Amino acid sequence: MSTQGDSIHHQGPAFLSWRKLHLSKAKLKAASNTSALLAGFAMVAVVEIQLNNNNSDSEQLPKPLLFLFAICTTMLVAVHMLALLISTCILPNMEAISNLHILSLVNESPHEKMHMYIELAWGCSTVLGILLFMVEVAILCWIQFYSVLKEAAYVATAILVPFVILFIWFAIIFYRNLVAHTYETRKCGIQELEELKHVLEMGDELTTTREIRNGPLVNII
Amino acid sequence: MSTQGDSIHHQGPAFLSWRKLHLSKAKLKAASNTSALLAGFAMVAVVEIQLNNNNSDSEQLPKPLLFLFAICTTMLVAVHMLALLISTCILPNMEAISNLHILSLVNESPHEKMHMYIELAWGCSTVLGILLFMVEVAILCWIQFYSVLKEAAYVATAILVPFVILFIWFAIIFYRNLVAHTYETRKCGIQELEELKHVLEMGDELTTTREIRNGPLVNII
Amino acid sequence: MSTQGDSIHHQGPAFLSWRKLHLSKAKLKAASNTSALLAGFAMVAVVEIQLNNNNSDSEQLPKPLLFLFAICTTMLVAVHMLALLISTCILPNMEAISNLHILSLVNESPHEKMHMYIELAWGCSTVLGILLFMVEVAILCWIQFYSVLKEAAYVATAILVPFVILFIWFAIIFYRNLVAHTYETRKCGIQELEELKHVLEMGDELTTTREIRNGPLVNII
Amino acid sequence: MSTQGDSIHHQGPAFLSWRKLHLSKAKLKAASNTSALLAGFAMVAVVEIQLNNNNSDSEQLPKPLLFLFAICTTMLVAVHMLALLISTCILPNMEAISNLHILSLVNESPHEKMHMYIELAWGCSTVLGILLFMVEVAILCWIQFYSVLKEAAYVATAILVPFVILFIWFAIIFYRNLVAHTYETRKCGIQELEELKHVLEMGDELTTTREIRNGPLVNII
Amino acid sequence: MSTQGDSIHHQGPAFLSWRKLHLSKAKLKAASNTSALLAGFAMVAVVEIQLNNNNSDSEQLPKPLLFLFAICTTMLVAVHMLALLISTCILPNMEAISNLHILSLVNESPHEKMHMYIELAWGCSTVLGILLFMVEVAILCWIQFYSVLKEAAYVATAILVPFVILFIWFAIIFYRNLVAHTYETRKCGIQELEELKHVLEMGDELTTTREIRNGPLVNII
Amino acid sequence: MSTQGDSIHHQGPAFLSWRKLHLSKAKLKAASNTSALLAGFAMVAVVEIQLNNNNSDSEQLPKPLLFLFAICTTMLVAVHMLALLISTCILPNMEAISNLHILSLVNESPHEKMHMYIELAWGCSTVLGILLFMVEVAILCWIQFYSVLKEAAYVATAILVPFVILFIWFAIIFYRNLVAHTYETRKCGIQELEELKHVLEMGDELTTTREIRNGPLVNII
Repeated sequence: MSTQGDSIHHQGPAFLSWRKLHLSKAKLKAASNTSALLAGFAMVAVVEIQLNNNNSDSEQLPKPLLFLFAICTTMLVAVHMLALLISTCILPNMEAISNLHILSLVNESPHEKMHMYIELAWGCSTVLGILLFMVEVAILCWIQFYSVLKEAAYVATAILVPFVILFIWFAIIFYRNLVAHTYETRKCGIQELEELKHVLEMGDELTTTREIRNGPLVNII
Repeated sequence: MSTQGDSIHHQGPAFLSWRKLHLSKAKLKAASNTSALLAGFAMVAVVEIQLNNNNSDSEQLPKPLLFLFAICTTMLVAVHMLALLISTCILPNMEAISNLHILSLVNESPHEKMHMYIELAWGCSTVLGILLFMVEVAILCWIQFYSVLKEAAYVATAILVPFVILFIWFAIIFYRNLVAHTYETRKCGIQELEELKHVLEMGDELTTTREIRNGPLVNII
Repeated sequence: MSTQGDSIHHQGPAFLSWRKLHLSKAKLKAASNTSALLAGFAMVAVVEIQLNNNNSDSEQLPKPLLFLFAICTTMLVAVHMLALLISTCILPNMEAISNLHILSLVNESPHEKMHMYIELAWGCSTVLGILLFMVEVAILCWIQFYSVLKEAAYVATAILVPFVILFIWFAIIFYRNLVAHTYETRKCGIQELEELKHVLEMGDELTTTREIRNGPLVNII
Repeated sequence: MSTQGDSIHHQGPAFLSWRKLHLSKAKLKAASNTSALLAGFAMVAVVEIQLNNNNSDSEQLPKPLLFLFAICTTMLVAVHMLALLISTCILPNMEAISNLHILSLVNESPHEKMHMYIELAWGCSTVLGILLFMVEVAILCWIQFYSVLKEAAYVATAILVPFVILFIWFAIIFYRNLVAHTYETRKCGIQELEELKHVLEMGDELTTTREIRNGPLVNII
Repeated sequence: MSTQGDSIHHQGPAFLSWRKLHLSKAKLKAASNTSALLAGFAMVAVVEIQLNNNNSDSEQLPKPLLFLFAICTTMLVAVHMLALLISTCILPNMEAISNLHILSLVNESPHEKMHMYIELAWGCSTVLGILLFMVEVAILCWIQFYSVLKEAAYVATAILVPFVILFIWFAIIFYRNLVAHTYETRKCGIQELEELKHVLEMGDELTTTREIRNGPLVNII
Repeated sequence: MSTQGDSIHHQGPAFLSWRKLHLSKAKLKAASNTSALLAGFAMVAVVEIQLNNNNSDSEQLPKPLLFLFAICTTMLVAVHMLALLISTCILPNMEAISNLHILSLVNESPHEKMHMYIELAWGCSTVLGILLFMVEVAILCWIQFYSVLKEAAYVATAILVPFVILFIWFAIIFYRNLVAHTYETRKCGIQELEELKHVLEMGDELTTTREIRNGPLVNII
């Protein structure tokens, strides 16, 4: 029975790594879906917007607005393409591991080494990318409304301001909560595994039988 | 046998939390799908609408209509982007837990701590977002029909009014029903688990065997 | 063995409710997919159609046609948004239950209480929504052909008439068949469960063993 | 052991019906996916085509071409909407049955009663709908090329003719092959089940054990 | 034990047919996805391209270019629609068989009889369809650049030429490799099955037990 | 017991090949999804961009910009079509093998022979394709801004430059890390399998029983 306890002791960090693998995979998938969609819409907006649709009698769009539009569009597409590149590069390596459902292969998944890039891809895609998409829509409103009714564009921007603040505030809150949450549960997770190991070493035959038959559970712990 | 009873007693709240995890996950997925789609259509509408397509001989669009269009579009995109952000941030953490199918990890999922944000994302996306989409289409009808036939735009608005009322009424009904429903079933759920614990402590060997072999059931209860 | 019989007797209505849950879930999913797609196309049509594309020399579109277009578009979007709202509200609660694969939780799913709304969402989306989409395309044909060749629009409408009649006739046939079918099979279902209970009370050891090992079957019956 | 033989004898027609259920489900899903996509493209074509884009100096589109375009578009949308309606109506009822994986419920699925409508939906969507889509593209080529280079439109039509013939020929071949194939295999299927019943009645203990453990197989036969 | 050996001998060709069924299914699915997407883009291109967007002062598009565009577009749509028809016709019959996971039903799947059509659908969709799509984009570049800068169109064509050659060369290499590969592995497959049969006839009790419990393996071999 | 050890020794390379199969499959799927999407957007951009939208009074687009646009668009579509061709050709052969879940068939999958082409498809689609998409958006910005505000186009390009550098740097880092990672883990993998073989030869009865029951694990190792 001690063999089993050892194997769990041995698999403790492997199991945590396995969970990190699943978390990273879910993050990259979410990033990749959001990125492709929003970058596509941004490109359509660039192609179909008409910057000089007014004849010489109506006033021209102001320069800062055009600068903002050029910067925001390029940033939006670049950020999402970067997220898509990172996601397309790392995800296949992680899916190839996680689809085999063999815990001991978890060390061969690149999600620990590439941790920083995964967080970067996810952060680029969600926080920066979605924020830039909101700003892009506001700029498009400005371009469309400028020669028609400037006040409407001011109102649209005024509405967007609290949302952007809310947005950044949420991003900070989420980040803190998740970091705190991760740290806390990781500590608990190790304690729990220690206790589980203890219980198993003490465990009677019935418990063993029950656990052995719970296919997926045994595969992983 | 008492060990098993204890383990169920211990897992009672964990099991309820596991169910909340599944509910939150389903809500966020629904919110994320709806949000991306409707925000995309709203952006296309902003880019492709022609606010000054009439030459100087036809009458201009009235200012309140343009204000409404700017406000509604910005709100619509902002609300859906907020829902998308919340969904993209929290969902990976929950999927990483729920894909492992291990009940004891449920405490590490952020769905309890982030409960308020999940409800906010879902509420934003469904009730507010879908309502704003309906209003947006009505405004688009106004813009298209204004210089052609104003009466058609009035009729379109008149048709929309009962739908909006129906809409808000349904939202209230759903909210009340679900809240009442949740409260009621949660109470029943605890009672049921108590009874289940009792039955299992009394249970004969056959029952135990049967339950042990029901793989997925045992994994969870 | 009588315990098992009792448990099936106890689960008889629960099992029927479980099946209703699956049926409602499938209906809402179908409604939600169709709704989002068709409402999106309707919005694109509103934005991109040009109602005053003809200069003063060609004749204007007639008022009844414009009224029809305004009414049909608004109805189409409103009907699909209503179906989407109902679907997005109820579906997560049902998926959270059905994903756990535990029969006894079926009472906590809102599909019985919300039965009327589910049928409404499905009816709105399929029968009314698809019919309105067909009418919308006919109106778009009218708008496009009016100043070019009115006869082509008449022919298009003439072709659509038998389809609409076929459509309504099918909807009625389907409704009757399904209602009759449901009633009939529900009666059979109860008889069958009664017989199954009887067989199980009489059953020999071999039968029991065979059934116990059929994982998914035992989970549900 | 004779009990088991009887149960297979009893389940013979049920099993064939189960297979028909799977076939009908696959057909309706294919029909529904194709229909929504092609109808959507047809609607976009109606909205965005410009029938009077030429000023008075270039020649008008001929009347038969406009008639053809109006007829083909309306037919195309109507045929696909009909297929979508039938698919959305019947599919949920079949999915609710097939997702439970219980063979004895197969009689409650409406796929036998509604057989004619399922074949109609599938035929509409695939044969007629895809053929009309090809013709629609040819007509669009005509409209676009008419005032530019009529010969190109003639060539496009000439290329399409052998494809349409190939198309109809394939449809007939497929239909005959599948009907012949279905008839033949159904006869074999019944013979095979008879033999299987025989083998099982003769079977020794080892065979029985092996079959019982093959979960999915036992669930169905 | 000889019974088991016989059953494997009997299932040898059935198993090879089962694998061909999976291969054909995967090919048709890939063909159907690619076809719908590329045909849709081609139709959008036909509707939205403006062939006479230049006033009388700029030069007209040359006739051979217009002929090429008409031919390429019609071929592209016809080839993909043909692939879609074949795929929609045969795929449901194959999915209905493969979803049941019963090896003995493999003879009822039409993938052997319809082998030629499946290869045709796949070849149309991938090799011919993708090649035509590349040519279509080159023609669109020509149309857009003709009245602006002819040299750019020449450069674009010059870039495409090596890709088309690479394309055809790859198609030939793939075809040869896969045909050779299939032939070789099929020979090996039969030898392997012969050896497996031998091993099983010689096999000791332990081996048998191990194999019997490997659910999915036993289902298929 | 030595038989089992031998079988693992025999399956050592097969298992590594099985993992490579999963990795290649995941890569090709990612490549195919990205390719279809980005090529589609590129085609829409070609069709909808207006290169001569300015009347004779505004200045013409410069020749190098038009050359760049023609080259970049053609390369973008050709690269993605090549990736799509390779993916559509090889993926069905690999899916047909991997869906059967039989380890011994891994030699019949073409992923070893076609290794070079798979890497080429993946590299084309991700690194080159995504990079070209970013450049394409920058060129589109130039075309749109050229006659309005050239400085905005310069700023957009300036923003893109660090992203492209970051992009290439990431691609190199990823490539090195993954190659190093693969080499390292492959060495470990062989050692681990050697040790596993050793443990199994030494293993007691309990271990054997536990492993045999872990269905999916045994299927693969």
